[in-house]
Amino acid sequence: MTDALTAVSRDQDQSLRERADKVIPGGMYGHLSAQRLPAHYPQFYARVQGARAWDVDGREFVDMMCSFGPMILGYQHEKVEQAAAAQRESGDTQPGPGACMVELAELLTERVDHADWAMFGKNGSDATRLCLSAARATTGRRSVVAAETSYHGWSSWSNKLADGSAGRPDPETFRYTYNDLDSVRAAVAQACPEKVAAIFVSPFRHDAGHDQELIDPEFAKGIRALCDEIGAALAMDEVRAGFRLHHGSSWEPLGVKPDLSAWSKAIANGYPLAAALGNERFRAGIEQVFATGSFWYQAVPMAAAVATIHALKDEDAVAKMQATGTRLREGIAQQADQYSCDINQSGPVQIPNLSFAGDVEFKKAMTFCGAAAANGAILHPRHNWFLSSAHTDADIDRVLEATDAAFRAVRATFGPD
Amino acid sequence: MTDALTAVSRDQDQSLRERADKVIPGGMYGHLSAQRLPAHYPQFYARVQGARAWDVDGREFVDMMCSFGPMILGYQHEKVEQAAAAQRESGDTQPGPGACMVELAELLTERVDHADWAMFGKNGSDATRLCLSAARATTGRRSVVAAETSYHGWSSWSNKLADGSAGRPDPETFRYTYNDLDSVRAAVAQACPEKVAAIFVSPFRHDAGHDQELIDPEFAKGIRALCDEIGAALAMDEVRAGFRLHHGSSWEPLGVKPDLSAWSKAIANGYPLAAALGNERFRAGIEQVFATGSFWYQAVPMAAAVATIHALKDEDAVAKMQATGTRLREGIAQQADQYSCDINQSGPVQIPNLSFAGDVEFKKAMTFCGAAAANGAILHPRHNWFLSSAHTDADIDRVLEATDAAFRAVRATFGPD
Repeated sequence: MTDALTAVSRDQDQSLRERADKVIPGGMYGHLSAQRLPAHYPQFYARVQGARAWDVDGREFVDMMCSFGPMILGYQHEKVEQAAAAQRESGDTQPGPGACMVELAELLTERVDHADWAMFGKNGSDATRLCLSAARATTGRRSVVAAETSYHGWSSWSNKLADGSAGRPDPETFRYTYNDLDSVRAAVAQACPEKVAAIFVSPFRHDAGHDQELIDPEFAKGIRALCDEIGAALAMDEVRAGFRLHHGSSWEPLGVKPDLSAWSKAIANGYPLAAALGNERFRAGIEQVFATGSFWYQAVPMAAAVATIHALKDEDAVAKMQATGTRLREGIAQQADQYSCDINQSGPVQIPNLSFAGDVEFKKAMTFCGAAAANGAILHPRHNWFLSSAHTDADIDRVLEATDAAFRAVRATFGPD
Repeated sequence: MTDALTAVSRDQDQSLRERADKVIPGGMYGHLSAQRLPAHYPQFYARVQGARAWDVDGREFVDMMCSFGPMILGYQHEKVEQAAAAQRESGDTQPGPGACMVELAELLTERVDHADWAMFGKNGSDATRLCLSAARATTGRRSVVAAETSYHGWSSWSNKLADGSAGRPDPETFRYTYNDLDSVRAAVAQACPEKVAAIFVSPFRHDAGHDQELIDPEFAKGIRALCDEIGAALAMDEVRAGFRLHHGSSWEPLGVKPDLSAWSKAIANGYPLAAALGNERFRAGIEQVFATGSFWYQAVPMAAAVATIHALKDEDAVAKMQATGTRLREGIAQQADQYSCDINQSGPVQIPNLSFAGDVEFKKAMTFCGAAAANGAILHPRHNWFLSSAHTDADIDRVLEATDAAFRAVRATFGPD
């Protein structure tokens, strides 16, 4: 198989896809499946370094997905890898935690202003589920209120597709519209205020397949006040956004503190780790909960997380991502204008999203991202992208060459807007 | 703080416990908490190598818990670490899976006779939940039948303590007694046969706080026949036992094949990985399920798993664990006899369990294991232990020195039986 646009052999990727079809359901599952992406996307990767990735056929890409978030300082970041290697030499999965677990819990509770304690898991879903457990155990209530079309992990409380055709919405989960406080009040009323254990919220609206929405500060304050009024926990899902918007909890600049927060993805720059953080009110409750995992105490990801969190601040990572994210946003806006494409760029520049006006079936987005992939940039047609502090201006300019070709492809296929 | 029996300083461990009390709920949570263990147990570890572990105060132990199972070839196993290091140099968490994911899925489906496909996660709970999802999506049914007091992960379908005081048994989960086919029939009748998606079973009964029970081959055949009769999946939880009893699925020697199986713990010798395996009947169902995790595609644990699974066979690990496990069982039996202690050793010798007659509050077991820890062996009073292929006869003899002291302590505290 040869890439139509780049005339590069795709034999290795194709051969692995054929082998995978036999032994992996659907050939690949979950968010890293390339099945629903244009053919120019690789499925299998051979190497990563900094902000670049190489597929199994040796094609080089600027990675604007950062492995869907985990990479925040760049792949193979020297200080993170040194800390990980030093811990690995002593021990990784051991008969008990290492000192680095205490160090990490201290660092997180110091860095995140609402947090008095930390518990660790492996998946973002572990962290959101721990927050729910803490809320339920503390309040003695069971219901959850969460935004419609929001994603809080694959657990059945939030994901009605967890059981495929036998799946169903959880009867204890009630839905509101992001940034619409009246809809939260309505969901709470439907659930019965005295039965609501927690209201879940994301730092901004970042639902896949939708334009993003920044948080309305009045909504943030209102949802906090509502939780206080009904005695429910405000649980913030920082899995996607954590440490990309702020060096602490994402709503700290608004002066709004959640009670509980769920973290994963970027906190250890790619090492598998999740954390649930909480304040004093929820400590006694979470202590009653039985939750554990075989690898929840693994030392290397914790040592990597300590190094990551320090490096983020030392390197002023948020400011860097804002600068390069702005360069990307402005560059794309200029190209869209030049090619007369009606687009919408939404969300924080560090976690950008691009959509085409009226493109409800994502046909333009697919053409755009397919051409970008064929020209060396990994973007996504239905999901936000991620900046890292390893993305340089040169990387962004390389991406802008790819998006220029991508706009040309959209224009050639669909004509001007 | 000084260890009463060994006169060794425990200052580092104590100091870390005091720091942990402030920032970690209960000072530590889950199965690696030393809070409910005798004071001689360390909470924090500094180093592991082969079958040995050192705590933060430099005390050396023979580790008979193998980190509660993950370590099966010995800590820092050369071939596994080489494979992991080689993969790490290229990439670990990447924008997509590496070729090693396909290689691992091929190896697992070749090694485990019932398996036609593999999906990967991070926790044993991910793997059991994926099996449940596959069963529900395929059958269009929702109910689960599982053994009473069995542990299939911390997910709420199997763990009523997942929400602490607000927790409750899942209304779709029905319970049977291990090795009692009539009780399975009764649970199925209670659930309604046409509503049962899956019957979960462990390769042998290994519930914490209970003596273990080997599988009755007639029970295994009967539960298989019952699943066929009612159209439910037979889902085998291999998370604890997998690859310690057999180089394939644990019931292969009985000629009984499950439809689905859940694996984790030992499959990558300590690297964080879980796998759900299934046969063709369940492939189309699992393809409809939305399940994913940020780190489910991480390449290093998959490369480590490939090396682990090959090394297990190349080193004849099961036979080695059987030999050293037998040495341990016989040595302990002899000591119990010598000290007139009425004990029960149960389960496979590779996954041993020790209990004292009439010791319902585990007081003798606590004294025993506390003295063993003070004398350099990590055992557990309420949970099975684990052998690894790295345990040598000399390691076992070192453990038997510790258990000799431990029997003396039990005898001194409680008198002869």
